[in-house]
Amino acid sequence: MHHGQRHGGRGPGGRLTVVSLGPGHESLITPQCLDALRRAEVIVGYTPYLDLVPEAAKAGKELISTGMRGEVDRAEAAMEAALSGRDVAVVSSGDAGVYGMAGLILEMVEARDLWEAIEPVVMPGIPALAAAAALLGAPLTHDFAVISLSDLLTPWTLIERRLEASARADFVTVIYNPRSKRRHWQLGKAMDILAAERSPDTPVGLVRQAFRPEQAVSVSRLADFDATAVDMVSIVVVGNASSRMVGGRMAGGRMLTPRGYAGKYDLEG
Amino acid sequence: MHHGQRHGGRGPGGRLTVVSLGPGHESLITPQCLDALRRAEVIVGYTPYLDLVPEAAKAGKELISTGMRGEVDRAEAAMEAALSGRDVAVVSSGDAGVYGMAGLILEMVEARDLWEAIEPVVMPGIPALAAAAALLGAPLTHDFAVISLSDLLTPWTLIERRLEASARADFVTVIYNPRSKRRHWQLGKAMDILAAERSPDTPVGLVRQAFRPEQAVSVSRLADFDATAVDMVSIVVVGNASSRMVGGRMAGGRMLTPRGYAGKYDLEG
Repeated sequence: MHHGQRHGGRGPGGRLTVVSLGPGHESLITPQCLDALRRAEVIVGYTPYLDLVPEAAKAGKELISTGMRGEVDRAEAAMEAALSGRDVAVVSSGDAGVYGMAGLILEMVEARDLWEAIEPVVMPGIPALAAAAALLGAPLTHDFAVISLSDLLTPWTLIERRLEASARADFVTVIYNPRSKRRHWQLGKAMDILAAERSPDTPVGLVRQAFRPEQAVSVSRLADFDATAVDMVSIVVVGNASSRMVGGRMAGGRMLTPRGYAGKYDLEG
Repeated sequence: MHHGQRHGGRGPGGRLTVVSLGPGHESLITPQCLDALRRAEVIVGYTPYLDLVPEAAKAGKELISTGMRGEVDRAEAAMEAALSGRDVAVVSSGDAGVYGMAGLILEMVEARDLWEAIEPVVMPGIPALAAAAALLGAPLTHDFAVISLSDLLTPWTLIERRLEASARADFVTVIYNPRSKRRHWQLGKAMDILAAERSPDTPVGLVRQAFRPEQAVSVSRLADFDATAVDMVSIVVVGNASSRMVGGRMAGGRMLTPRGYAGKYDLEG
């Protein structure tokens, strides 16, 4: 076991590890997660995530993948494999705990009362919010809210309430699942809600495919933001009242949320 | 340069990289950050963070550290070293973009108009919120707000407003900097604000020193939460209305926020 991991003795039912892949590039997977992938006998994941697993860790392994709608099937297959005594890794992109597979796995282990048989372990990774923030500069140096615009599992009225709350309480707002072919109007509505409480000059950062070959990063004014340029693999970050664009003549600009409200930069704690 | 990194050509003024150490254990630093540390000629950081840098990466390097209140001094020393043509790494624990050094560095580069001379790069890491979530189970599978209780740079009235907004809009709430010797009453007040909108049975997770030898993890009912057990190196996670304790007879319990409000686990997107 890795130092400091809380759980993860190999139970009588095998081993089930939820592994976070981070943005997808091998230089951004932790050694802890890479070791878990190397050790696993079975790797389970949505096909595009399995593609992110380093080839060396996949060689000779049983790979179980299903399409986007097969989440429950994947979780069940992972549990069955663990119960048969095998060492199973379930992979999630970003951090498995942030809108990832950790929740579904734990929920199913709970529903079937398999805690003692399986003892699942969750290993953290670089969340999409941290990857996007690093590429944008420093937008998350102050309090922020993280909101998914996917209304398949959440009523849109609740999503709107959270957007309003985030806008009014001056949180930097990180938007996951901003737009898909079927969910094309929600992002525009979300930006309208935020714009009601923010200056038109508020910076909005857009990061697509962070740290992948297709990576695209841009910062625009809230008033100029083009929601139609956004897709499912994007993260959108809307600044708080203090956020501003920085970066001088650098291509694309950067986004900064200053930490101090009074310029007291010699104080901390 | 690492694949996909947006910036970071070595400018005429040298190189300045903000490096995220994650929770502190070497198995949770990304290869990207470890490479940046190995490559650096100068490593700058608050003393306890320098202690987290692997020895092999520190050997033979110039190390610049100052005490807790020397943040600005450290940032200035890092800029001066980069301007003299050296390769400089500024280290932050967790993710440097989440309440970390990235903001201050970018703010100072902006104030002195050094973008073209230095071209700072921020490298992401495992934020404390992700490390805590993994150890607690799966508390962050739905929308969440991240709030620091430190009122040295932020008026307490604004912090209260954010806590109220998070409670009313049913965000899972992640609390950074929950308590110190000088800031001893704020956490109790924060929990009172959250308790006004939550059931007494709401799970509250407490993680101290995640993935370090002193690690301590516990989950309690909101009504039973003992704020005096919390210190500066803790993260507190308060559930939303759907969060619950799980884990059966496992020591300490776990915390789960189910994703779906209608049990529609065969849908995603």
